Amino acid sequence: MTQFKGYRCSLCQTDFDPVSIIYTCPKCGGNLDVLLDYEKIREKYRAEDLLSRSEDSLWKYLPLLPLSDPGGFNTPFRLSGWTPLYSPPILKKSLGLAELWIKDEGKNPTASFKDRASAIVVARAREINAEIVVTASTGNAGAALAGMAAAIGQKCIIFAPKTAPPAKVAQLLVYGAQVILVDGNYDSAFDLTIEASKEFGWYCRNTGFNPFTAEGKKTAAFEIWEQVLVNLPAGSKPLCVFVSVGDGNIISGIHKGFLDLQRLGWLKQMPRLFGIQAEKSAAIANAYFDKTETITPVAATTLADSISVDLPRDGVRAVRAARDTGGEYITVPDDQIISSIGELGKYGIFTEPAGATAFAGLRKALAENVVNGDDPVLVINTGNGLKDIRAAMMAVTAAPVIEPTMVSLKNHLKV
Amino acid sequence: MTQFKGYRCSLCQTDFDPVSIIYTCPKCGGNLDVLLDYEKIREKYRAEDLLSRSEDSLWKYLPLLPLSDPGGFNTPFRLSGWTPLYSPPILKKSLGLAELWIKDEGKNPTASFKDRASAIVVARAREINAEIVVTASTGNAGAALAGMAAAIGQKCIIFAPKTAPPAKVAQLLVYGAQVILVDGNYDSAFDLTIEASKEFGWYCRNTGFNPFTAEGKKTAAFEIWEQVLVNLPAGSKPLCVFVSVGDGNIISGIHKGFLDLQRLGWLKQMPRLFGIQAEKSAAIANAYFDKTETITPVAATTLADSISVDLPRDGVRAVRAARDTGGEYITVPDDQIISSIGELGKYGIFTEPAGATAFAGLRKALAENVVNGDDPVLVINTGNGLKDIRAAMMAVTAAPVIEPTMVSLKNHLKV
Repeated sequence: MTQFKGYRCSLCQTDFDPVSIIYTCPKCGGNLDVLLDYEKIREKYRAEDLLSRSEDSLWKYLPLLPLSDPGGFNTPFRLSGWTPLYSPPILKKSLGLAELWIKDEGKNPTASFKDRASAIVVARAREINAEIVVTASTGNAGAALAGMAAAIGQKCIIFAPKTAPPAKVAQLLVYGAQVILVDGNYDSAFDLTIEASKEFGWYCRNTGFNPFTAEGKKTAAFEIWEQVLVNLPAGSKPLCVFVSVGDGNIISGIHKGFLDLQRLGWLKQMPRLFGIQAEKSAAIANAYFDKTETITPVAATTLADSISVDLPRDGVRAVRAARDTGGEYITVPDDQIISSIGELGKYGIFTEPAGATAFAGLRKALAENVVNGDDPVLVINTGNGLKDIRAAMMAVTAAPVIEPTMVSLKNHLKV
Repeated sequence: MTQFKGYRCSLCQTDFDPVSIIYTCPKCGGNLDVLLDYEKIREKYRAEDLLSRSEDSLWKYLPLLPLSDPGGFNTPFRLSGWTPLYSPPILKKSLGLAELWIKDEGKNPTASFKDRASAIVVARAREINAEIVVTASTGNAGAALAGMAAAIGQKCIIFAPKTAPPAKVAQLLVYGAQVILVDGNYDSAFDLTIEASKEFGWYCRNTGFNPFTAEGKKTAAFEIWEQVLVNLPAGSKPLCVFVSVGDGNIISGIHKGFLDLQRLGWLKQMPRLFGIQAEKSAAIANAYFDKTETITPVAATTLADSISVDLPRDGVRAVRAARDTGGEYITVPDDQIISSIGELGKYGIFTEPAGATAFAGLRKALAENVVNGDDPVLVINTGNGLKDIRAAMMAVTAAPVIEPTMVSLKNHLKV
């Protein structure tokens, strides 16, 4: 664990030692960045050493994580990350792009990007001998924590609003998590987990609160580096990465991963990060457009539930991720999110609404010449479409019904 | 395509040439086995050559398939198969097994075992220049065909009974399949696809009808060979493979894969195949118990919808798969299927009911000493639990609701 040097507050820049178990900045409340000992890593590893490690999961990047090896071999815990890239030729051509990749996070063990964060937090919990990991969640983050914890026998408790969809709660319960529903909204569940973790010494996973969630999410940047960046021809324009944004933690984590590589001297060119928000949940995009780091909460109503967020918990770093990389924020209406599910489906890629949001953002960026045909583009699908069948049903038109006879079939086919 | 020699009827043993596009035996209606030119394969490849091919999908076994390379790189089509094995230490210990693996077919592109068959049938369709692939399905097979076809731009039509769950139909539609609902049951949809494929020259994927579905499913046997069998110590008892059985095509396909390896001289020891059926859908098990190859239809009512089958279309070969390998048939009640979902979930493995069925069968086999602690065991999870959230909800007990206050929490936790 020698490469873990401590934390630095993203707002007031105060440093904290690695021994304390802290979450947001004790001084100003800002999100904490994990500091690594880049010198030590560089002494021990060359970029080629990382690239040649053979494990097909995020654990191949262990030397760049603030953790010792957590074990968990031969379980789903060990299989988060190293998600595939698709590059459908027809889609690429129809968009007029020379290079297009879709990174499918729906292939993670519990079928969303959140497995990356949960795997790292559960590993951290094991390292600090936390008896219980707790989180507030109604969706993917909870499922990811429940799944990753179950895989290595870590006890966890998940607080969800009592209005959470029974199907999502069932997934948490199947994984054996202790689930407590609260008679309130997500924010009241969030606050209760923080209070309870303080009082009972539970380890709190909450996104945008625990600094290790971004450390998990940064592993997607390492994979993009290995799967795409090291193979881009010299003189190529920078890669444009499109990712949906809710609380801001995924784009912040990906930015952190690229920054780690840059500090190690292993990154030829920083990718441009494009944060895509639903118009009906655009608190971070609003701040970006207003050129401020003050995040004003909204009353989010988008159908893309994974990115429907009133008060983003990682807004400032998320604004910076686009601003500091020459990216952009883009907002898209719900109807384009839904139609993007159907569009990607036609290439065999089944996405949840938050995943389709990133693609809808790409479409808008192309239409407005924010990116062009010679910009290499990577779109992140954050979750499997099976996570939200209700949205899938909105994306399609009903199938016809016929009598089970050849006469009816021929009438229907007009042959 | 030189290794594809033709077909042999599993009932009347008549051989057919590889040029004809045939389904079941034109003489007696029996299921057809695909014949390979084992001599030619052996001349060209050693077992080690197959094991050292680096593609992480079923396509690494292309030299053992009756197909030329279908392409489809960088799409989900190319990612079927090469599913992971789990070996949860605590579960292994609690069952008293020295060796236990769970092969997770839920990690396939459309989240079920059926992707193997659909990938191969779609590749075959491309080879014979079929304009349209058609199938009858209400569930995983249809989703797999729709997903695999979409990934490489193959047109497909899916017939489903109009009573099919709207969520499952939505998945087909998202993948861009032409879906036609029929005012009848699965069997009427099945019959209509066969009639339509005859009249319109469509290529019919129907399971237990098209001989290429078993060729796809056999690739799971090749993976078990590579992931487990070649590493079993000398003198080990034969591997016991537990798999759920509905229409009988998966167990038949796996048997075919092991037979291929045996004929090549690459298999040290034939695994024992254990077919697990739901008590409420046990047509094949009934025949097995009655020591007959005459399959008598039942009125299937099990909750495990992927294996709820009145009239199994691949029953004879399925009976033989267990009988000829020293395996067994085992039936389990629905309540044990449902409770097995919860049991596997506690190890981070989320299964659909048909997947949990195989595990319930293992439990019964251990209780009745059909297998013992020193038998190496592999259980196949045929699909992801997200495929059937309704069943997951039955596997768990409801979560408590509290006020979002520390007082309520402490009352609830009794601390």
